[in-house]
Amino acid sequence: MTQAVRIIGIDPGLRRCGWGIIEALDNRLRFVAGGTLTPPVDGPLSDRLAALAEGLNGVLDAHRPDEAAVEETFVNAGVRSALILGQARGVVLVTPALRGLPVAEYAANLVKKSVVGTGHAAKDQVGLMVRTLLPGAQVKGADAADALAIAICHAHHRISARRMGVPA
Amino acid sequence: MTQAVRIIGIDPGLRRCGWGIIEALDNRLRFVAGGTLTPPVDGPLSDRLAALAEGLNGVLDAHRPDEAAVEETFVNAGVRSALILGQARGVVLVTPALRGLPVAEYAANLVKKSVVGTGHAAKDQVGLMVRTLLPGAQVKGADAADALAIAICHAHHRISARRMGVPA
Repeated sequence: MTQAVRIIGIDPGLRRCGWGIIEALDNRLRFVAGGTLTPPVDGPLSDRLAALAEGLNGVLDAHRPDEAAVEETFVNAGVRSALILGQARGVVLVTPALRGLPVAEYAANLVKKSVVGTGHAAKDQVGLMVRTLLPGAQVKGADAADALAIAICHAHHRISARRMGVPA
Repeated sequence: MTQAVRIIGIDPGLRRCGWGIIEALDNRLRFVAGGTLTPPVDGPLSDRLAALAEGLNGVLDAHRPDEAAVEETFVNAGVRSALILGQARGVVLVTPALRGLPVAEYAANLVKKSVVGTGHAAKDQVGLMVRTLLPGAQVKGADAADALAIAICHAHHRISARRMGVPA
C-alpha cells in the first residue's frame, strides 16, 4: 500500500452517534477529525433518523473518507432497545454504502483488543489508548474516542487482510 | 380535502419489504401500484440495506407519493431478530423522510382494525379485505397486501385527524 487511505469509524446511536476519521499509510496512523452527532431527541422517529443521515452526509462531504467501519452492536437491554438501536444502525450502515463506500463491521471486543490489547477494556482505557495511538488528536468525548478506535481497528485489519491476500 | 393525496404504505423487512400505493380523495380510495422489494440475501449488510434503499427510491421516483406510512414493528423473536429488523426499518423510515415526505407509524393491530374491523385478523383476511376495499387492485403477494393495508389505515386516520382539527 503506497497511498494513504482515509477511514471513518462510526459508533451508532440515535441520540449520540460518534464519528472519527483517520488516515492510514502502511502502519502509520494520522488523526483527521472526530465528533459526535446529536439528532433531536423528540419529533417523529423518521425525522430524527433523517437528521442522523444528514449529519453523517455532512461529515462525509467535508472529509471524503475512502472506507467506513461500524461497530457490531451488542445489545443486552431487551427487544425494544435492540429495535431502536437497530434503526439508528441501519441509517449509519446505509448512508456511506449509498455513496459507494465499503462498510466493514467489527465486534466491540475486537475493537477493544485492537486498541488496548484486551477485549475487556474499560471505556476510559480506550480513550487513553486512542490519544496515544493518534498523537495530537483532538478527541471530543467518549463517543468520538470509540469511533476513532473503530477506525484504528479497521486500519489494522484491512492491512492484515491484504497481507493474507484477502481483499480488504 | 379537495385534492387526492397519494399514500405509500411500507411493510419493512430485510429480505422482503412490501410496498403499496393508493390515492385517497375524501373517503374514496383508489389502487395505484404495489409490490415487494427483495434485496440480495447475502453480501455485506451495508450493501443489502443500500439495495433496499435504492429499491425504495425507485418506487418513490416512479410513483411520487405525498405521504408515507410504516407499520410499527412488533418483535417477539428475540434481541438478534429485533436488531436485524430494526436495521431494515431504519432504512425504510429514513428513505422517504430524506425526500421530505411525512412518515406516519401505525401499530400492527390498528392497521388490522382499520381494514378488517378487528385487531386480531388473520393474514389472509387482511388480503381479502384489501382486495374488497380497492376493487381492481393487482395485489401481488402477502407483503404487498400488508403494505396496502398500512396505506389504507393512514388514509382513514389522516382524515379523522383533520376532522378533529389536528394536523394530519
